[in-house]
Amino acid sequence: MDQDRVDRMRASLGKAKLDALVLRLPENIVMGFGVWPMSGFSYAVFTADAGPLTLIAPSAEDEEMAGCWTDDVRFFTWPRLEMPDPLAAIRAAMADVVRRQRLSRARIGYEGSFECVAPSHNAAEPIVPCESSNSFLKSLAPSARWTDATALLYELRAVKTRQEIARLRVAQRVAGFGLERFHASVAPGVTEAELAAVAFEACLTQGVRLRQARHVNAYPQVSGGPNARRAWRPIVTTGPRRLRAGDIALLELAVCVDGFWADVTRVKVAGQPSGLQQDVFAAVEAAQQAATATMCPGIEARVPHEAATSVLVEAGFERYMVHLTGHGLGFRYHEPEPFLMPGNTMKLRAGHVCSVEPGLYGPGFGGIRLEDNVALVERGVENLTKTTKTI
Amino acid sequence: MDQDRVDRMRASLGKAKLDALVLRLPENIVMGFGVWPMSGFSYAVFTADAGPLTLIAPSAEDEEMAGCWTDDVRFFTWPRLEMPDPLAAIRAAMADVVRRQRLSRARIGYEGSFECVAPSHNAAEPIVPCESSNSFLKSLAPSARWTDATALLYELRAVKTRQEIARLRVAQRVAGFGLERFHASVAPGVTEAELAAVAFEACLTQGVRLRQARHVNAYPQVSGGPNARRAWRPIVTTGPRRLRAGDIALLELAVCVDGFWADVTRVKVAGQPSGLQQDVFAAVEAAQQAATATMCPGIEARVPHEAATSVLVEAGFERYMVHLTGHGLGFRYHEPEPFLMPGNTMKLRAGHVCSVEPGLYGPGFGGIRLEDNVALVERGVENLTKTTKTI
Repeated sequence: MDQDRVDRMRASLGKAKLDALVLRLPENIVMGFGVWPMSGFSYAVFTADAGPLTLIAPSAEDEEMAGCWTDDVRFFTWPRLEMPDPLAAIRAAMADVVRRQRLSRARIGYEGSFECVAPSHNAAEPIVPCESSNSFLKSLAPSARWTDATALLYELRAVKTRQEIARLRVAQRVAGFGLERFHASVAPGVTEAELAAVAFEACLTQGVRLRQARHVNAYPQVSGGPNARRAWRPIVTTGPRRLRAGDIALLELAVCVDGFWADVTRVKVAGQPSGLQQDVFAAVEAAQQAATATMCPGIEARVPHEAATSVLVEAGFERYMVHLTGHGLGFRYHEPEPFLMPGNTMKLRAGHVCSVEPGLYGPGFGGIRLEDNVALVERGVENLTKTTKTI
Repeated sequence: MDQDRVDRMRASLGKAKLDALVLRLPENIVMGFGVWPMSGFSYAVFTADAGPLTLIAPSAEDEEMAGCWTDDVRFFTWPRLEMPDPLAAIRAAMADVVRRQRLSRARIGYEGSFECVAPSHNAAEPIVPCESSNSFLKSLAPSARWTDATALLYELRAVKTRQEIARLRVAQRVAGFGLERFHASVAPGVTEAELAAVAFEACLTQGVRLRQARHVNAYPQVSGGPNARRAWRPIVTTGPRRLRAGDIALLELAVCVDGFWADVTRVKVAGQPSGLQQDVFAAVEAAQQAATATMCPGIEARVPHEAATSVLVEAGFERYMVHLTGHGLGFRYHEPEPFLMPGNTMKLRAGHVCSVEPGLYGPGFGGIRLEDNVALVERGVENLTKTTKTI
């Protein structure tokens, strides 16, 4: 068990005067219970007194729930042809927890406002708590005081524990397999889709071989040549375009290993880069280094962004800047804290994990972004992304 | 524009005495507006009077929103370093629509209970309407009568139009690329992860070359040998296991092309199949054929399941049955109607699209499932899945 995490969660509940949390989202259950629900049908009860108390999970996920931080794991039959009503089974289990723990008039937090969610391992079909599901929850203890605990959960998630950072290093290793393969594969004649596929293949085939990884997923997006000018978009359209000599290829890669995420980007030119491409790349790399060099606990989150911006302005590329310099991540592809952006006076803390990703987009060179993930440590910053950076 | 779809939606709103629908989920917007939102931040207003009326979308998705069934597409700036508050922009646009269309006291349907959702193209981070988002919606017209329209939307989605079935054929072609490549790649020494990767690669690289496809995504899951005994689970864990001679490999594959889904499964033995594997395969294939042969409009949804079951029981494999025979699909990987399962007296209708997927799981042969997708037509059924079926 990650005692540090459990202690922080209990303290946070105490401070918020909440008796318990009911969690549904895999991204929050992995934080509080140490296991990553596979489909999203689980219910987890965490109390201020006991920490991780009860997990109610589908029987199909019995293997994955091994190692849960509570012994009280209750399975309901799902999915089988002959099965009792799963909702009735969940209701009965939850009613039992409410009764035993005397939660019927308690103050209970729930996930009311997660508009942006991490998919479960089966990313083709995430399960999310919706209005009807929240009503069901409230009907289990109608006299309790139900409170939207979204802000509290985000605050807890923003600062990672040592064990969580160790898990994030695994996700980074897997992402690194994809980045290196991409880097080795960029050449004239290769298509965007082929590059995305090799990145996927490297992450998956090498990732599942790691002792510390069980469920691996990769989400590569590649744009090449003039398309890369639009690679600042949150959705990079991977298409059939074949790289020509001198085209940039940009890989935006999300990786999830057992609920822990990496979010990285690399670029490479097919053939010989032009002088302009080399200049832009050098500026972006210098901006990334400058931003990272400013980072340590106590620094305001605007500072790394300003450091990156200074370098890009100095190099004469201000007009090609589009986006901010970084965002939190870890339990999801993107998390709200800390945003490295203008005016953000929030102070960086040890345990913050975020991207550092300056990028420039313009005519003649395409789109050039470098994205690493870093963890704030006591005296500075650890760059979690170890892979090659050349154009 | 798909006039048939728009007419059905308008009629359905009229019957439910709703003046308008506000849609957020990409899977519903693609049905009513003919474009597939990329990130999930869009708002779409469909009225009983006018059909697809207004789409409010992020500026980053301008290209993808071309061809929308309304001319009133309003973009808000997102995401750029310098941007006005997107929520304020959405609020202003929605307020304008409410005022012009006199919706302030109208009956408005919204997506209250979509617990299971399709990811947007960026499957690493789906955006879903949550409680806070629904409160925001209601604050735009506090005197309107807001109604959870989930059931109405599912009912509309269950019966596909001709144009929608044409789009599903494209998704099937792309899935077929993955199935064929998987089939050709199964051999002793190959790992589960390698098979998943080649299926992904085939779908992506060949899929994006199709004239009718723009955004292609594939979600392969492979289990091999003894692992395949657990392939009835909704989550198949793709691992590092190397196939040995005589091992079965099972590919569960979801494909999404521009918001239209396929859900297919194939199996293949590495090397020479055993007599038992051949017998089980033959029974499953015969069960699938028997189920499909019963299907036409007017038939109860239990009938195909019973037909498949009879074949499997007759062959002596009843004890290896785990799951039902089919589920709806199309706007998502799985949709609730029609379920081909015991006791379901709902009548099949022309336009229903569902899987037909008998499977057996047991010692000595692993897991053997064949999953095709079929569309009910006037006089019977069209099998949308054209690819090879051998063991």
